[in-house]
Amino acid sequence: MAEAAQTLDGWYSLHDFRTMDWVSWKALTADERGNAIAEYQAFLEKLDETQTEGKGSHAFYSIVGQKADIMLMILRPTMKELNVLENEFNKLTIAEYLLPSGSYVSVVELGNYMPSEGDPYENPYVRERLYPELPKAEHVCFYPMDKKREGNDNWYMLDMEDRKSMMRSHGMIGRQYAGKVKQIITGSVGFDDYEWGVTLFADDVLQFKKLVYEMRFDEVSARYGLFGSFFVGTLLTPQELPTFLNI
Amino acid sequence: MAEAAQTLDGWYSLHDFRTMDWVSWKALTADERGNAIAEYQAFLEKLDETQTEGKGSHAFYSIVGQKADIMLMILRPTMKELNVLENEFNKLTIAEYLLPSGSYVSVVELGNYMPSEGDPYENPYVRERLYPELPKAEHVCFYPMDKKREGNDNWYMLDMEDRKSMMRSHGMIGRQYAGKVKQIITGSVGFDDYEWGVTLFADDVLQFKKLVYEMRFDEVSARYGLFGSFFVGTLLTPQELPTFLNI
Amino acid sequence: MAEAAQTLDGWYSLHDFRTMDWVSWKALTADERGNAIAEYQAFLEKLDETQTEGKGSHAFYSIVGQKADIMLMILRPTMKELNVLENEFNKLTIAEYLLPSGSYVSVVELGNYMPSEGDPYENPYVRERLYPELPKAEHVCFYPMDKKREGNDNWYMLDMEDRKSMMRSHGMIGRQYAGKVKQIITGSVGFDDYEWGVTLFADDVLQFKKLVYEMRFDEVSARYGLFGSFFVGTLLTPQELPTFLNI
Amino acid sequence: MAEAAQTLDGWYSLHDFRTMDWVSWKALTADERGNAIAEYQAFLEKLDETQTEGKGSHAFYSIVGQKADIMLMILRPTMKELNVLENEFNKLTIAEYLLPSGSYVSVVELGNYMPSEGDPYENPYVRERLYPELPKAEHVCFYPMDKKREGNDNWYMLDMEDRKSMMRSHGMIGRQYAGKVKQIITGSVGFDDYEWGVTLFADDVLQFKKLVYEMRFDEVSARYGLFGSFFVGTLLTPQELPTFLNI
Amino acid sequence: MAEAAQTLDGWYSLHDFRTMDWVSWKALTADERGNAIAEYQAFLEKLDETQTEGKGSHAFYSIVGQKADIMLMILRPTMKELNVLENEFNKLTIAEYLLPSGSYVSVVELGNYMPSEGDPYENPYVRERLYPELPKAEHVCFYPMDKKREGNDNWYMLDMEDRKSMMRSHGMIGRQYAGKVKQIITGSVGFDDYEWGVTLFADDVLQFKKLVYEMRFDEVSARYGLFGSFFVGTLLTPQELPTFLNI
Repeated sequence: MAEAAQTLDGWYSLHDFRTMDWVSWKALTADERGNAIAEYQAFLEKLDETQTEGKGSHAFYSIVGQKADIMLMILRPTMKELNVLENEFNKLTIAEYLLPSGSYVSVVELGNYMPSEGDPYENPYVRERLYPELPKAEHVCFYPMDKKREGNDNWYMLDMEDRKSMMRSHGMIGRQYAGKVKQIITGSVGFDDYEWGVTLFADDVLQFKKLVYEMRFDEVSARYGLFGSFFVGTLLTPQELPTFLNI
Repeated sequence: MAEAAQTLDGWYSLHDFRTMDWVSWKALTADERGNAIAEYQAFLEKLDETQTEGKGSHAFYSIVGQKADIMLMILRPTMKELNVLENEFNKLTIAEYLLPSGSYVSVVELGNYMPSEGDPYENPYVRERLYPELPKAEHVCFYPMDKKREGNDNWYMLDMEDRKSMMRSHGMIGRQYAGKVKQIITGSVGFDDYEWGVTLFADDVLQFKKLVYEMRFDEVSARYGLFGSFFVGTLLTPQELPTFLNI
Repeated sequence: MAEAAQTLDGWYSLHDFRTMDWVSWKALTADERGNAIAEYQAFLEKLDETQTEGKGSHAFYSIVGQKADIMLMILRPTMKELNVLENEFNKLTIAEYLLPSGSYVSVVELGNYMPSEGDPYENPYVRERLYPELPKAEHVCFYPMDKKREGNDNWYMLDMEDRKSMMRSHGMIGRQYAGKVKQIITGSVGFDDYEWGVTLFADDVLQFKKLVYEMRFDEVSARYGLFGSFFVGTLLTPQELPTFLNI
Repeated sequence: MAEAAQTLDGWYSLHDFRTMDWVSWKALTADERGNAIAEYQAFLEKLDETQTEGKGSHAFYSIVGQKADIMLMILRPTMKELNVLENEFNKLTIAEYLLPSGSYVSVVELGNYMPSEGDPYENPYVRERLYPELPKAEHVCFYPMDKKREGNDNWYMLDMEDRKSMMRSHGMIGRQYAGKVKQIITGSVGFDDYEWGVTLFADDVLQFKKLVYEMRFDEVSARYGLFGSFFVGTLLTPQELPTFLNI
Repeated sequence: MAEAAQTLDGWYSLHDFRTMDWVSWKALTADERGNAIAEYQAFLEKLDETQTEGKGSHAFYSIVGQKADIMLMILRPTMKELNVLENEFNKLTIAEYLLPSGSYVSVVELGNYMPSEGDPYENPYVRERLYPELPKAEHVCFYPMDKKREGNDNWYMLDMEDRKSMMRSHGMIGRQYAGKVKQIITGSVGFDDYEWGVTLFADDVLQFKKLVYEMRFDEVSARYGLFGSFFVGTLLTPQELPTFLNI
């Protein structure tokens, strides 16, 4: 048996995708819509407060194309809190018009293929990455992925050394995009259908394509990467929300 | 032909996943909702009685993410009883608001790759595992799985000895999680689309990820495991149910 | 080119799966429901008459889990009769509440890998198997299957002799379940998405699992079997139908 | 690069599958239903006229099982005409009750792996096959297919000579069914999800199974065939249509 | 690691597929329909203006078969503009009757496997291809595709030289169709589920089949191409729109 990789695990994560039911939304009166938006904004403000207190974080984007209209990604210290927030959202008036179109359950993860000293959970640099404040970048990209286990391309049958060395060169590609793309890896083994979720943030949306395409030529992705659906979106600020929903 | 594994089979199992139709639920009056909840609770109390009498068991969880809102897992001595309970549930008022979003039919199974003496069905340790009382752990994890039959990775073409030895080392990983994760294996060959269902219970939800990830590096999973959808949930106690459903 | 297997073909078969729309069903008055049930029963009695006359057969089961609530399997001498019955059923009042959730079109088939003398269609033993009266066993199991054509595991590239010898050993497993499980093989090449449908009948539902699991270790299944969805059900007698549908 | 096969292309083809919404249909008055049927029949009669004028052809069948209730296959000289007819059908009253359940866009195709002399488009035998009048056989069978491109089983990497020789022996099987099964091959590369559509017509429905099963042992299908969904139906004559739709 | 291909990237692209809900559309009064069409036309005219100003382009087609009724492909300098237009369209009255049936998010891409001098973004020939005015050809064809990463057929593990040489011969096939088929390649790595979208324009719809089929025998497609769904359509001019929607 190959030695299992050790991971560091931070905040739990829920990516929640929704599609607007414009037909029903339009059927409301302007007042009803106004009230629903205000209630929704109050919900989002509460999330902001939690973020300000450092007890979680979230990101709010409009998705391009028909897969979804809105993505809300929420980070919290416990899985239970995600479940409670989800339940709370479902009872909002706006939830009657934001139909579910996909979700992803995971936990912020750092693979420690690199040697480390001391308790990593006390390391401020590590803590910042396990409990991150999500950036307000212009664009977001999300996709889930697996490492392949097919015939001769079986990641989980490789030696730890081989995996480490491949991940190191893989990580070097990512580092070339430092300052351009911020990457949050969340692990979902045992939580959702793929093994990882990848969430990227960038002001220049083209950097997502450049990064993911360059990585695809790297052996880790070329031989071992198996990708799910890709979602790309643009930042939806609290100020823009009423415009977005305005009829 | 490879020698077929022998199994011990216990209670029949139904995992029933439901998604709440909040829009229609909200359209009810508070009284109507109250009555529907009371009727639902009476149904769940009857399940409790059966469990107290040792004639079955069940687990009730809220699922995180959009795949489902609620999972009810029921164990009973006969398949017929599961069918009757399912029919009974479908006629409840609450069932009009808890839309089907997946199910799994199986039977509690012990693979006896290990030698055993005497009639195992009389062995108290075995009986406790075939007819288990499901724990009230904080979290649940469910996924179905197959053993691969692809090219050189064909579990069913392996010698019994090879399978036994691999399952033994696989089981050793599980045993390291004793006290942290309780695992119920149910067999579903001939009953549902995968060969097994795996239901895990833990107070610390992170243990699901650690266990499943560690196992993935074991040859049994790495070469031969084929996994379906993963569901993760948090305990829903009878006391919490009204809060969960409250508008 | 490998020599094609010859088959004997009997009655045409339609497996019709339905899911009950309980919400709409409950919205009817007791009288309306009563009339719908009576009309449904009259339809089923007509099927009984055809069966008594030896001009066809059928089986009626309640399916466990959410894939379907009811399965009606009908055998008839011609495909046209199945189409007419299907059309007739669709016009019943009950059909408004029994939503389609899957079907399978095939024909009772005997593979004659074994040598035979004389016109097999005149052989009473063969006729009994081509034009069978379906048993009223306590449980049913249905699944469709293909023989693989992948890389080195290509059933259709094998010599007739190799296929015959493998099918003989495969059949021997089935024969060990004689008296416990009755098996109806229907061929669906050219009629539906898989190559065969397998319908099993047993009083002890566990025998389905034992039989299918044991066969999975046999080379025919292990290397060459490709399986679709599995459905398992319990007998629904005409007497039980009103209870099943009762609100 | 392997030499590409040359094809002859005839009329454009649309297979249109529909499922009857019986619940809504029954809700109409007898008069409304009568008018809808009359309008539908007028549409079908117009298709008959086009066929009589030799400017196209069509086939109209009732599909067995739940995949669809009705299949209308239309052949026309241009893709645009298919689009216009489709739009015209969609505006009929009956179209409100015949919900879309699948379609296939292709063009009648003759692969000329066999040598030919002169302009094939002037050859009367070829013309009859490129612009065929579809038969009024008792049964129809439709399925789409691809040629595999997997590992060592890659049709498109084979020499023209090898492909020609395999197609010749494949064609010989088909010729044994002359007089029993009429076969229309339509090409759909660039038009729909598979590379070809196969439409078979026969008075004896069992011949579909015999033909497709025998071909499956031929190397072209055994190693290189990849099949989509199969549909089987019975002829629906204009006279039978009112009965089919009658409540 | 294989050297990653460099790309030039132009306008962002959204393919938006819609299916007409004729039942609801017919339920409107002629006036309501007229107003909805006028509003829709005003939206399309605004797109025309942007195109005239050289700030984007679009193509508008009616799709053949049931996958969709209408395809609107829009090119714009930023992803944000696509998102804004999508939101704007969703608020139109016609959007209530044009249900989403698929979309594709990508960016016009030129692979520069060929050596080039100077800043390609200043090259007028390159600019014309990165920021193209979409043609008003009689027909359109769209499909998404991947390069395979399976066993020995792994595009991303090949040497740059091998990929370049294969792409060169692949491009030569395309060049034979110059004047007959215009091809727009859009890259979607990081944006949508496949790696590229291919949009073809031609007056003779048969050229799509000839081109795609011929390319399939080329090693790049034969061994490495993996194709999604194909859509084919006919031009829908502003003049034809009222006819198309007319009841």
